[in-house]
Amino acid sequence: METTIRKYELSASMSAGDVLLQHLRGVVGASNVFSGSEIEERYRSDMMRKYSSTPLCVVRPSSTEEVAKIVQVARNAKIPLTTLGGCTGVVGGGMCLQGEIALSLERMNKIIEFDVESMTMTVEAGVVLQRAQEEAESHDLLLPLDLGARGSATIGGTIATNAGGVRVLRWGTMRDMVLGLEAVLADGSIVSSLTKSLKDNAGYHWRDLFVGSEGTLGIVTRAVLRLRPLPKSAQTALLALNDFGCVPQLLRFLDASFAGQLSTFELMWADFYEFVSAAQLQQRQRPLPLGSAVYVLIETLGADVGRDMELFERGLAEALERGLASDVVIAQTERERANLWAVRDDLTEAYKPLFPLAAFDVSVSLKDMPHLVDRARSAVQQLYPCATMLFYGHAGDGNLHAVVKLDPNDAAAEAKVEGAVYECVRDLGGSISAEHGIGLAKRKYLSYTRSPAEVALMRSIKGALDPDNLMNPGKVLPDSQTH
Amino acid sequence: METTIRKYELSASMSAGDVLLQHLRGVVGASNVFSGSEIEERYRSDMMRKYSSTPLCVVRPSSTEEVAKIVQVARNAKIPLTTLGGCTGVVGGGMCLQGEIALSLERMNKIIEFDVESMTMTVEAGVVLQRAQEEAESHDLLLPLDLGARGSATIGGTIATNAGGVRVLRWGTMRDMVLGLEAVLADGSIVSSLTKSLKDNAGYHWRDLFVGSEGTLGIVTRAVLRLRPLPKSAQTALLALNDFGCVPQLLRFLDASFAGQLSTFELMWADFYEFVSAAQLQQRQRPLPLGSAVYVLIETLGADVGRDMELFERGLAEALERGLASDVVIAQTERERANLWAVRDDLTEAYKPLFPLAAFDVSVSLKDMPHLVDRARSAVQQLYPCATMLFYGHAGDGNLHAVVKLDPNDAAAEAKVEGAVYECVRDLGGSISAEHGIGLAKRKYLSYTRSPAEVALMRSIKGALDPDNLMNPGKVLPDSQTH
Repeated sequence: METTIRKYELSASMSAGDVLLQHLRGVVGASNVFSGSEIEERYRSDMMRKYSSTPLCVVRPSSTEEVAKIVQVARNAKIPLTTLGGCTGVVGGGMCLQGEIALSLERMNKIIEFDVESMTMTVEAGVVLQRAQEEAESHDLLLPLDLGARGSATIGGTIATNAGGVRVLRWGTMRDMVLGLEAVLADGSIVSSLTKSLKDNAGYHWRDLFVGSEGTLGIVTRAVLRLRPLPKSAQTALLALNDFGCVPQLLRFLDASFAGQLSTFELMWADFYEFVSAAQLQQRQRPLPLGSAVYVLIETLGADVGRDMELFERGLAEALERGLASDVVIAQTERERANLWAVRDDLTEAYKPLFPLAAFDVSVSLKDMPHLVDRARSAVQQLYPCATMLFYGHAGDGNLHAVVKLDPNDAAAEAKVEGAVYECVRDLGGSISAEHGIGLAKRKYLSYTRSPAEVALMRSIKGALDPDNLMNPGKVLPDSQTH
Repeated sequence: METTIRKYELSASMSAGDVLLQHLRGVVGASNVFSGSEIEERYRSDMMRKYSSTPLCVVRPSSTEEVAKIVQVARNAKIPLTTLGGCTGVVGGGMCLQGEIALSLERMNKIIEFDVESMTMTVEAGVVLQRAQEEAESHDLLLPLDLGARGSATIGGTIATNAGGVRVLRWGTMRDMVLGLEAVLADGSIVSSLTKSLKDNAGYHWRDLFVGSEGTLGIVTRAVLRLRPLPKSAQTALLALNDFGCVPQLLRFLDASFAGQLSTFELMWADFYEFVSAAQLQQRQRPLPLGSAVYVLIETLGADVGRDMELFERGLAEALERGLASDVVIAQTERERANLWAVRDDLTEAYKPLFPLAAFDVSVSLKDMPHLVDRARSAVQQLYPCATMLFYGHAGDGNLHAVVKLDPNDAAAEAKVEGAVYECVRDLGGSISAEHGIGLAKRKYLSYTRSPAEVALMRSIKGALDPDNLMNPGKVLPDSQTH
């Protein structure tokens, strides 16, 4: 790798910080280095406005080679780097805490190759998810990853966090869509394996290790994504169940009946369903009456509108006959489909009265999910008897979400509620992060989910790949002294 | 972890080797330690009889804790360990080369928990694949991994090699079926993450790094496997195509038409099809006439025999109409289905006249696959103008297999043919191992597929996790001096 850096005029009277900025300008040009008051607000805060970031400067490279040179500059100056994607993370994984260099990949937003024959696309990390989705659709193909922040989240960010969403049941998380990867390591070297094949057993599978490592092992610069044929039909329904006991059987039955087509199986507990649908009553009717214990939103994606709907209706009728559900409504139009989805997905307005809130993203086995809900509910109620709590989640993936409205007058409320819920997760052997990652927010709870031996293994890997702790320091792993 | 080891009578006059054996007997009992002539042939050779192994001793632990104690004993004695599963590997990954301790997990063959509700099974590493498959089927569930050696390959071995097979297109490789993993590291610690959820983003995903690492990073002792609803219908057909050019389009068309149900898409070049079907003519008719350029075996697995066959026939008729295939035969009975599969899968007898042979397992993008076949064919023909060469593979995965009959009088033939074919793979940016791993056989070709930066990254990981090189030494990574 070429490591020579074009020198801007450096004078003997410059401070170390000024020298660093001049070196960085030498790599990316003066118009792509910002410091001090030049740094826009969007680089300083996360989507939830929970954290604030204090970058020393923001640098915007345009190529992998520039990223590698920036890493060399940072390494020489012993200044760490934090990589920014769409800044839509919810655990503070992209926050510069100690005056680091913020590396924004927004200019690395090219779709490098679209290979219809191999059903892959090769993209730079800064490509926005929605643009990648639309590019795939224009070729009659599907990039299955989808999530609410699609309009700003980037491919690099969804790789860094191993993003999930509402179709994991069928197509997996981002890790399952990344066939090839390129990254810049802490020593400035470029590792590149932009393969298009599903199978590649030549040595250690470092790609899957990097996916989900939240920028702490290196900087992802490009990826080859696996695409699927674009579905031609979507069948959507909302089901009501009298108790959770039927959920696992219902999932197995529908997954078997709709062989290969079941793409979504989203669970909403009664409290969530009542709260969200009530908040939306001015825009739309409540699709099923209140009074059931749980509600399930399901969707199949197929190839043939008429045939798939017939199969869908038949399967749901049989589920009712078998007593696996007590009521069901099937969307007959796109508008009805959007209405069903809104109850699960259109939460921004509905949640407003809940702020300040604590949000949870945890996983347990499906079997343990109702136990987790019961335990978490009573643990929180012990602390705050009247707290509003809503439970929902991607049941097919073992992923439970919850929100708890916090007492705005109790500064310790968030920590107390978090501790109480994560203790329940720990006791059931679950994970404190299903899809959002650890970042800053969950670092101190990592040991609830990972044994000391696992944390030690993670530290070994981090130490080997980033001995000087230059890559997004202070994230994922707890401080070794205190935990 | 408890590390005390029961002491057998150690006397001052014992050799270091005897002391080691006594310590090992102290861990697993005298009846589970073999040395010298007590070591049976099955521990000494691989399935292909290509390599021979010289273990110092064979140890058969019955629990993870015993494995951890054995690692401690080995570490104290500075003797490396090689883990043995079903000994069906084809690249020599399980060969003890330097008088190591052979750790056979054959006694760790318990199915620990079958969780129908979560659609998972938790097994010890020594469970034979076929037994795990049958256990799943008895609960109306499917463990999708399948391969010829199912009767002896173990779950641990298929994890170590990230086994593939003929259904990767739909359900992925072994990595995609491993939700939870437990392993013993080189320092004797036990890392255990026996999760049952599809989503777990709490820290580095070390599980996926261990899958496919061929026992060089640690010893896999248990796993949680993801299961699927057991399909109720299987539709199988053989298609003939006049040229390769239609293959990518045919795959996309069928994958889209059979939304979610296409499970197998196996490609056979004319030479392979002619050779194998000719060898089988005494047992069964050739299912389609010779004369086409490529043949494709496809299968869909679904939920409804009648409906799925109707969909299958309609899709294939449309493929013929569109000119994506020139001929097709659909199996109408289980016997016909077995006959179609035999052409692709029942190779043992057919291959006998080809020995000695060189076998290849490589991957490239689907688009490049015909180029690889052409280049490899002419490269081999330049060396041996009359060599018999057969090409086939899992086209949906970009995985090409080939066999080349070697001149038995030319001792250098294998190395020459290998070098020639791997050069073609390198030039097309492919992988020298799609599903078999690197082991011993492909170590010296790793740099054909992996850049120096990637190999350095792999060495960093290996060095961090196994600094004394105790875990299956001499496999996967080339010697650092020579490559």
